[in-house]
Amino acid sequence: MSPGSVGTVATQHLDLPGSLPLDCGRSLRRVRVAYETYGTLSPARDNVILVCHALSGDAHAAGLSPDPPPEGTRDGFAAAASPKGIGWWDGMIGPGKAFDTDRFFVVSTNLLGGCRGTTGPSSTDPDTGRPYGSAFPVITVADMVRCERAFLAELRIDRLAAVAGGSLGGMQALEWATSYPDQVNNIVVIASTHALQPQGVAWNAIARESIMRDPAWQGGDYYGTGRAPDAGMGVARMVGHITYLSAPSLAEKFGRRLQSGGDLRYTLHEPEFEVESYLRHQASSFVRRFDANTYLHLSRALTYFQLDLPAAAETIMARTLLIAFSSDWLYPPSASEEIFDALRKSGKEAEFHLIDAPYGHDCFLLEEARQTPIVRDFLTEGRA
Amino acid sequence: MSPGSVGTVATQHLDLPGSLPLDCGRSLRRVRVAYETYGTLSPARDNVILVCHALSGDAHAAGLSPDPPPEGTRDGFAAAASPKGIGWWDGMIGPGKAFDTDRFFVVSTNLLGGCRGTTGPSSTDPDTGRPYGSAFPVITVADMVRCERAFLAELRIDRLAAVAGGSLGGMQALEWATSYPDQVNNIVVIASTHALQPQGVAWNAIARESIMRDPAWQGGDYYGTGRAPDAGMGVARMVGHITYLSAPSLAEKFGRRLQSGGDLRYTLHEPEFEVESYLRHQASSFVRRFDANTYLHLSRALTYFQLDLPAAAETIMARTLLIAFSSDWLYPPSASEEIFDALRKSGKEAEFHLIDAPYGHDCFLLEEARQTPIVRDFLTEGRA
Repeated sequence: MSPGSVGTVATQHLDLPGSLPLDCGRSLRRVRVAYETYGTLSPARDNVILVCHALSGDAHAAGLSPDPPPEGTRDGFAAAASPKGIGWWDGMIGPGKAFDTDRFFVVSTNLLGGCRGTTGPSSTDPDTGRPYGSAFPVITVADMVRCERAFLAELRIDRLAAVAGGSLGGMQALEWATSYPDQVNNIVVIASTHALQPQGVAWNAIARESIMRDPAWQGGDYYGTGRAPDAGMGVARMVGHITYLSAPSLAEKFGRRLQSGGDLRYTLHEPEFEVESYLRHQASSFVRRFDANTYLHLSRALTYFQLDLPAAAETIMARTLLIAFSSDWLYPPSASEEIFDALRKSGKEAEFHLIDAPYGHDCFLLEEARQTPIVRDFLTEGRA
Repeated sequence: MSPGSVGTVATQHLDLPGSLPLDCGRSLRRVRVAYETYGTLSPARDNVILVCHALSGDAHAAGLSPDPPPEGTRDGFAAAASPKGIGWWDGMIGPGKAFDTDRFFVVSTNLLGGCRGTTGPSSTDPDTGRPYGSAFPVITVADMVRCERAFLAELRIDRLAAVAGGSLGGMQALEWATSYPDQVNNIVVIASTHALQPQGVAWNAIARESIMRDPAWQGGDYYGTGRAPDAGMGVARMVGHITYLSAPSLAEKFGRRLQSGGDLRYTLHEPEFEVESYLRHQASSFVRRFDANTYLHLSRALTYFQLDLPAAAETIMARTLLIAFSSDWLYPPSASEEIFDALRKSGKEAEFHLIDAPYGHDCFLLEEARQTPIVRDFLTEGRA
């Protein structure tokens, strides 16, 4: 085991009792939650950090999977030198790391609507015995958080030392602090926002259109038909991937280098530029590991998310750490700054760190070394 | 007729004799060119300005069409208050305007590969009597310019006072000045580049993937089948449209306003946000007026375009006017500045104007009033 690793960790599953009420007015029965834990729960059960993943993550946040899928969650620029089966935030979670498992009991769940073990559109609908498909209700970030809370109640955890996440994960942390202000001591909100900007709403709409316009989507009921909207979801992933990176980082990594090395091949069908080939690869590996309906639902949920400032800042009781990245144009630093300003004006404890880094939104997965001391200091100083 | 208008102008057509050689090694026979002219050709035939359109334009650059199609070329933010059938650059071309038809004979053609009258993938292949479809050769910006030059030769015009265009149109102007340096007095290059940045290459690849992954594309041979890749091209247009605008301009125009006015409807299928509805509208109107194979070929051509600096600057003899827009992140001002610097270092006459304007790449179609004095002064001072 390498130093700082939590070792091999398998994903476990827990079925929630009762039913889970949703913002849309419907509810879900027999919700299953996939989760992993790292570190040791203190006798007082007061050292729990909930880690929330972003759109394409899963419960396997740290360590090595005993049964790694062919396509890992660390893809794109993060794929290089990542061991097979490594957790998506392994650089941040472990003994001595930002989320220090020598001190904290770190819990990571696959979110509601997911496709990696927690109940989602591809799960069996107990009412029909068939996959939900189009019958899966439209969910919100608040629904995800309600699910996480119900799950933690099953573990007899009723107060969190911290909730942490990047992007959609950061939205969950913010939602925790506003929905359950007396149950969260600290939140760590990275590369996130209180409300996606209209351009981000547009990118998400385009990604969803791409999936729903694929005839193989079949209105959402493609399970068991032998067809899936891989073509459309591939395009959705390409759009997402480019919005997660910055123009300079693409220029530095690929330039205008040709696939063939020298001459143009004069083809529409084949990639001519290296960046074109890279995009195709990202798309094809993503569709092998991800469910299109989950993509639709999570994209919809993160688009809906909106904390009204400054009112929300009045509600939040948790100490708040905000981290943003200079080159992140999808979740621009200005949003984190707005949240920070609102919290400070409400007299709340908050820190805002702007990290100057070139990789766009994906920085939250790539710039682990620079986030580590910020997160460590924040959790050490606090009452966590 | 409103002041400054060239009046009603119909698109004409001209068939080129012989065959047109292409960069890919193939050639095209019986090439037809759609064109319009505005103003009067001087007896010395020395007052000609060739106006080159961008990806989605056509030969109808100015005035009113006698037979306006249901969907005009002025869409997006430019659609508001545009009379039906108005040319895509009507604000720039006419008596007393930037390209002053009291002085110049302005010629506008639909470019090679187009779908609005000039030979393109939807035209009849003389070898088979059927539409080219997948048989249409991959073309380049140099091929477009070669076609324009052959067309002008038919009009017995062998020297241009100026070549002007924005975006892909600006690439054509640059190509004219490097391929035929002794035949062009001035070029006006707006919101363009000597080589698309890798992020732009990626956006174009995504748009093409979206079209080619649509099963209705049928490898390019969809003509006459009753099906066309409208779904995929709609997504391509959405991607393009967002890259042509800026995040602040989307925020200002749409914010996060909901379609329904108040409450969320919890739906995947229907637009919830106004910006989502706007995107759908852009897509559906675009697919009614544009051919998917033309989109593929023009996107490929503009991706290929590359002038190697500083060598190209040595070749260019034309006085060069470069205009860029502060919020244009697809064709960022830095590219225009690079061209400007290379020209100045080579001792060439060049001007660079950076216009501070919020509408992104689409500024070249929207900020006509601010471009007008710059273009007028440039053409007045020059030997045009």
